[in-house]
Amino acid sequence: MSHRSRLFAVIIDVPGVDREAATRFWAAALGAEAAVEEHEPQFTSLAHGLVAAALQEIEGDGPRYHLDFETDDLDAEVGRLRALGAEPVSRYLDCHVLRAPGGHLLCVIPRHTDAALFDATARTWDG
Amino acid sequence: MSHRSRLFAVIIDVPGVDREAATRFWAAALGAEAAVEEHEPQFTSLAHGLVAAALQEIEGDGPRYHLDFETDDLDAEVGRLRALGAEPVSRYLDCHVLRAPGGHLLCVIPRHTDAALFDATARTWDG
Repeated sequence: MSHRSRLFAVIIDVPGVDREAATRFWAAALGAEAAVEEHEPQFTSLAHGLVAAALQEIEGDGPRYHLDFETDDLDAEVGRLRALGAEPVSRYLDCHVLRAPGGHLLCVIPRHTDAALFDATARTWDG
Repeated sequence: MSHRSRLFAVIIDVPGVDREAATRFWAAALGAEAAVEEHEPQFTSLAHGLVAAALQEIEGDGPRYHLDFETDDLDAEVGRLRALGAEPVSRYLDCHVLRAPGGHLLCVIPRHTDAALFDATARTWDG
């Protein structure tokens, strides 16, 4: 069995009180169009090129960044990263939050990139 | 006058005590070859594809991530980001550390990507 995954995005986690100022800055800094995501309004997408970026409103515990890994097999990818030493933190719908050795937060999410780019750039891991 | 810049890298900032474990994890998680940078041994490069990544050993104040913007004109890019509201934090050689509105750290550095990729993907900003 094998599955695939790919570093998908940098997420700019920001408390609500700073959301407006941070959105203005990051959209202009990256040259991205900021768009609140319709079905997940805590996210503002900041699409601008090869690296996906988004801003996420969080409660407390910020400011910080985190990384998103996208995959065609959530359970296999979470299992792979846990076997490498990442610890589970929480789960929100299909987003699995892990803490890497050293303490950095990352999320494992289903494939978001279009299939052609995913096929061209994802890594294949043998289970 | 105009200049160009581009989001270059995600940097994984980690205290020295966690460097070895974090390097092992991130190299395997990304499928990257970890290589200590000869002239800047506080960095371990983690090249793996479209997004540059590296691990940096820092003193205190971690774990965290930060973003690197690369540019063909350091002064112009620092000026652009300061005009957008970023505050200067420190400078180390050619690396200018700024804090974005909302509190996230970013660095402005000279072009590191090869010229062809930079030309193809950098944004042009009119001064």
